[in-house]
Amino acid sequence: MKKFEKLTREFNEFLANESFKRQPKELYDPIDYTLKLGGKRIRPVMALLATDCFGGDYKDTLNAALGIEIFHNFTLLHDDIMDDAPIRRGQPTVYQKWNSNIAILSGDTMFALAYEYITNSSPDALQKILRVFNKTAIEVCEGQQYDMNYETSEICIDEYMRMIKLKTAVFLGACLKIGALIAGAEDKDVENIYHFGENLGIAFQLQDDLLDVFGNEDKFGKKTGGDIVTNKKTYLYLKAFELAKGDDLKTLEENFIQNHPNNEKKVEIIKSIYIKLNVADYTHIEIGRYYNLALQYLGKISLNDDNSNDIKQLAERLIKRDY
Amino acid sequence: MKKFEKLTREFNEFLANESFKRQPKELYDPIDYTLKLGGKRIRPVMALLATDCFGGDYKDTLNAALGIEIFHNFTLLHDDIMDDAPIRRGQPTVYQKWNSNIAILSGDTMFALAYEYITNSSPDALQKILRVFNKTAIEVCEGQQYDMNYETSEICIDEYMRMIKLKTAVFLGACLKIGALIAGAEDKDVENIYHFGENLGIAFQLQDDLLDVFGNEDKFGKKTGGDIVTNKKTYLYLKAFELAKGDDLKTLEENFIQNHPNNEKKVEIIKSIYIKLNVADYTHIEIGRYYNLALQYLGKISLNDDNSNDIKQLAERLIKRDY
Repeated sequence: MKKFEKLTREFNEFLANESFKRQPKELYDPIDYTLKLGGKRIRPVMALLATDCFGGDYKDTLNAALGIEIFHNFTLLHDDIMDDAPIRRGQPTVYQKWNSNIAILSGDTMFALAYEYITNSSPDALQKILRVFNKTAIEVCEGQQYDMNYETSEICIDEYMRMIKLKTAVFLGACLKIGALIAGAEDKDVENIYHFGENLGIAFQLQDDLLDVFGNEDKFGKKTGGDIVTNKKTYLYLKAFELAKGDDLKTLEENFIQNHPNNEKKVEIIKSIYIKLNVADYTHIEIGRYYNLALQYLGKISLNDDNSNDIKQLAERLIKRDY
Repeated sequence: MKKFEKLTREFNEFLANESFKRQPKELYDPIDYTLKLGGKRIRPVMALLATDCFGGDYKDTLNAALGIEIFHNFTLLHDDIMDDAPIRRGQPTVYQKWNSNIAILSGDTMFALAYEYITNSSPDALQKILRVFNKTAIEVCEGQQYDMNYETSEICIDEYMRMIKLKTAVFLGACLKIGALIAGAEDKDVENIYHFGENLGIAFQLQDDLLDVFGNEDKFGKKTGGDIVTNKKTYLYLKAFELAKGDDLKTLEENFIQNHPNNEKKVEIIKSIYIKLNVADYTHIEIGRYYNLALQYLGKISLNDDNSNDIKQLAERLIKRDY
């Protein structure tokens, strides 16, 4: 997918030209560090791609795209404090490398910097862009709160779906919507591309849940089984508990505990129950359902074949990851 | 000052009509709690007053004013985590009453809510308003970082002045500037009212430092000597160290220590050195200097007498607090 790669390169160049080496260094060093940790830059590139596909000049979206990427990294930075996560992208997290006060305050600064870039994006569409961005920022916080709540409470699959929609999916929709707004796309197209992104985002998160258990470690880029070790209530976990009866249910209950004596064994046991109960198949069906729903929204938009294909390839890229 | 009181009442009514009782309650209860703790609402009312004095309708500024107040409370909420502060306005702070994860995330949500209200303020002046607001938000974070740095490093008075300018003063300037922008004031007036507010803000903070030592406890509303007990490097502290020689310097050094065995005695000793060295007089001179500088900027603005007096009364209200 040449266009996606070209836009990723353009975005990375734009980011590299911005300097975050400012004073006081205790505040800005963690920001510079975070933004240089890398990452796939999917969200900003989605915004650039949407502008391009709706007939705009992607260069007009570079500022908003950087605002989006800074916001995304801000949420990760604060989430890492809340989740006690020591490692992000193979490197120490900010609160580990510095401390949690520094992580709180440099995160807050990144949130303001994100708005600074968004503000410099498009005077014509500014209020519309901000309404999407504000709403999304609030929803992402709500999603994170539900995620924290669910660590200690019983939840059903519907609650889980609401959580991942808020925490992950709406932001993907918002990136595309902001790109479309900057291109001056029609209102109904703007809404359809948003819902395309939102449903794609749900499929993306379910796929992530699946890869965490059944992914190819080399291609997935991290060790599988992490969600099982931490008792994370993923789609697979919830589906397994929904389906399991008798001894299987007992095995799930006995192994999804804090401080399991043998984590490798735990992953092996849980995985065998998942396989027995066809949990992966159920997950595939859900992924397919949201993926197709996304494509239905895309189908409502009058794009030429080239642009439509570029966006379809984006969807495939996000979902059809090797594993 | 009838206008200030009227606008305070109008603001409080507007705030009371907004509901923050939303879901998830773990996220929104602390926001509702924080915004109901009260406070003097000086910053939002400054924005309303500026709009009114520059010939606009203050009602057009209610949304921005609420954004300003929510932002201010967000900074207090996160500062309280960083400063380990258990009490705010006589009540437990959010991180004490709930926990620090809740305080981080509900603070982040307040930051986004602040932008939501700002975005709904004035379509015409939106980009200008946001530029002021973004810049100020970043500066407030920088000021807080310097403040934290200075807890463990030697600083001079110039560094202290830069810190209070960033942490406190620029925000007062920004409130007036945003109000003026919504009224459609001329560019040079907008800049002058900003510098009026900024210099007033520095005077306000120095006055706060002074009242913390020499205030009338009944009128000041809190026990004096708090800054001395916590070894806070205020203007008075720095000035005293600049002036003290011989035994006085030794007494300062021996008493400005962590875990002093007798805090009442500590306050008494330090206060007597401050009195001996005329530190209060030096502080009064600085307050007067910034206050007059503020009035010079105000003098450059062509306002009718009534409006000019309203703003002068605001300045007096902020500075000439009884003690």
